Amino acid sequence: MIATGVIVEYNPFHNGHLHHIRQSRKETNADIVIAVMSGHFLQRGEPAFVDKWSRTRMALASGADLVVELPYVYATAQASDFAKGGISILDALCCNYFSFGSEEGNIIPFLNSYSLLQEHNDTLQQIIKDSIQTGISYPQALNTAYKQLVPMNGQSFVDLSKPNNILGFHYIEAAYKIRSKMKAVTIQRIKAGFHDTIEVDSTIASATGIRQAVFKEASIDGIVSYMPQASLKGLDEWQQSNTTFGSWEAFWPLLRFTIIRHTPQELASFAEVTEGIEHLLLRAAKESESFEAFMKKVKSKRYTWTRIQRMLTHIFTGFTWQRLKSFKQPSYIRLLGMTNNGQKYLSLKKKEFKLPIISRVASLDDAMLMQDIHATDLYMLALNGPENTKRMGLDYKTPPIRV
Amino acid sequence: MIATGVIVEYNPFHNGHLHHIRQSRKETNADIVIAVMSGHFLQRGEPAFVDKWSRTRMALASGADLVVELPYVYATAQASDFAKGGISILDALCCNYFSFGSEEGNIIPFLNSYSLLQEHNDTLQQIIKDSIQTGISYPQALNTAYKQLVPMNGQSFVDLSKPNNILGFHYIEAAYKIRSKMKAVTIQRIKAGFHDTIEVDSTIASATGIRQAVFKEASIDGIVSYMPQASLKGLDEWQQSNTTFGSWEAFWPLLRFTIIRHTPQELASFAEVTEGIEHLLLRAAKESESFEAFMKKVKSKRYTWTRIQRMLTHIFTGFTWQRLKSFKQPSYIRLLGMTNNGQKYLSLKKKEFKLPIISRVASLDDAMLMQDIHATDLYMLALNGPENTKRMGLDYKTPPIRV
Repeated sequence: MIATGVIVEYNPFHNGHLHHIRQSRKETNADIVIAVMSGHFLQRGEPAFVDKWSRTRMALASGADLVVELPYVYATAQASDFAKGGISILDALCCNYFSFGSEEGNIIPFLNSYSLLQEHNDTLQQIIKDSIQTGISYPQALNTAYKQLVPMNGQSFVDLSKPNNILGFHYIEAAYKIRSKMKAVTIQRIKAGFHDTIEVDSTIASATGIRQAVFKEASIDGIVSYMPQASLKGLDEWQQSNTTFGSWEAFWPLLRFTIIRHTPQELASFAEVTEGIEHLLLRAAKESESFEAFMKKVKSKRYTWTRIQRMLTHIFTGFTWQRLKSFKQPSYIRLLGMTNNGQKYLSLKKKEFKLPIISRVASLDDAMLMQDIHATDLYMLALNGPENTKRMGLDYKTPPIRV
Repeated sequence: MIATGVIVEYNPFHNGHLHHIRQSRKETNADIVIAVMSGHFLQRGEPAFVDKWSRTRMALASGADLVVELPYVYATAQASDFAKGGISILDALCCNYFSFGSEEGNIIPFLNSYSLLQEHNDTLQQIIKDSIQTGISYPQALNTAYKQLVPMNGQSFVDLSKPNNILGFHYIEAAYKIRSKMKAVTIQRIKAGFHDTIEVDSTIASATGIRQAVFKEASIDGIVSYMPQASLKGLDEWQQSNTTFGSWEAFWPLLRFTIIRHTPQELASFAEVTEGIEHLLLRAAKESESFEAFMKKVKSKRYTWTRIQRMLTHIFTGFTWQRLKSFKQPSYIRLLGMTNNGQKYLSLKKKEFKLPIISRVASLDDAMLMQDIHATDLYMLALNGPENTKRMGLDYKTPPIRV
């Protein structure tokens, strides 16, 4: 059985994701597609649009055979750690390939770029360090350094100013670092760019654009062209049992209270909070009725929007630097859902997996897993539904989704 | 000028308070009545019904000449520390008398009881210790010990099973301990009992009863007989600019999130949280949609309702054991409001005050004061009004109330 892995958020699952799964399956001749998917907080530092079980259902209905969870600590981390978590889990699941979407679309330039940067790593790190001191963000600094290193010869290199290329690069780096036997594959994104809004006459839109459209119209009617039927059904069901989709704007009263309740010293103890920004966070939270107003006050050249949101995620969930540093590598594979085909793969390969697979959460002894469970509770509380009590400890109560 | 001090919460100010001020003034022949009043969190561990400036206005309209704030750390403490804070501030303000309401109504039995307990302090402490180990609460243990010590002779002693007698006893103790020159006076409460609900054909009801009536009827119509006009006006104005009166029930979504967000270890770091109750708090918070349901789960023989609520107050405001222990005695007198008469007293006596008087908060360097300011911000946020931004830092913006 050929297994191909993808690292995803599916926030929510749309036609672009469908395309990616289909192409990945085709190009790798895969018998099974495994998705390692973020839980309730995402890499851009945002709460998930809908919960992880709804997103699992969408994925299984549209081509994934197994969905496992990318633990909180990786799902909410900067690109290199996000990649490390995802790749390690796919590797532990004995995937033959991992496949990612990219603006580039061809794997060779990624491999060339990785070799080049490996060769000149010292120079690279020095340029990054110098660039950051001029006040630009890490991704910008990486790109600056990289541009200075790319030689002007016939070899092709990947454009590391594009967000999905960057992420792909980190996947390849992570796979090399753990000496994975998995082969890298990349699928050209039909519509490049992470920040696109919806355009007319297309069936592809970014997840960001889709979420914005739903919030703007307070309806899912405007996004029907961009989603598989199963995803629309999932969003529709969500609306029926929730008062809101997940977003910082919806969670702002709780997030704001949480920020203001802490002293600056305490705020600085949360993961990603650095260099005195805690004072700015506090002041801006006091001055802002809305999340949008808050971000306008906090955003600066030094910190990307994403970086700030990641701080907020960790403040919201009470996740400290100390805890972040206590985690070295993924310690489990948390099964969120499977098709019959996925179950077949599990039965066949389970014994070869490099990490224990958890299909039902029972014990309390894995700190990394506890953080996932904790994040679920806080996400559910923040949705502020009428039956929050039933929604506490959902990780203990919810068996893997079967489709 | 004769100055008489009272230690109060005025939550809200009702006819019983009016009676107490009038009688105190009369019995001490006072020229001025000074109230040291709790801020936004009270001795029973509850958020204030209305904010401290509204309550100051009520007090000034009904007989108080000066209202100063009892700092958070004392206002939310067990009876002996509550008394210590209040008495120290009245002493610092050069009061000649302090006057408290009691079920007893006569000061001699208090003084007798104090002497008796002082004399037999070692025995007392031993009995208390033994009693607590049988699982009863501190106030019950104190009363048990006390009953064993009271001799069967002609002297009269105060009944220390009554809540206002207990508090009065602690005032006297506190005054002795700081060697205050103030004389103690007590006024008989017209209607004894802290927990009474409203009765027909009376103009006196407890603050607890009044609050319950307002919450039950969602209106202040039912309490007009029990309040001075100025208090009714204050409550009416409050309703017009707020969606709710302060209560744990109204603040429950925030309090619940705050509890659940913490690890048990973190919960145990907050003041008054002891002996593993953090696990119970966490579990009960997850299981309870309402504050009432939560308290039913948490209440036990070991912990009084009040004690639990004080833990919740400190969790809510992020007030740790460490900070609690860093405060030794009041460090300032925070002026909340004054009449012309009150101002005259200030001008005349200011130089003799034993603590600096703060009429406008400006500096950040007093940690005790910062906690008051912090508590105000969190209280205002929890009220969840439409203009919270304007309500941040109110302590900096609000000059003393003038009536």
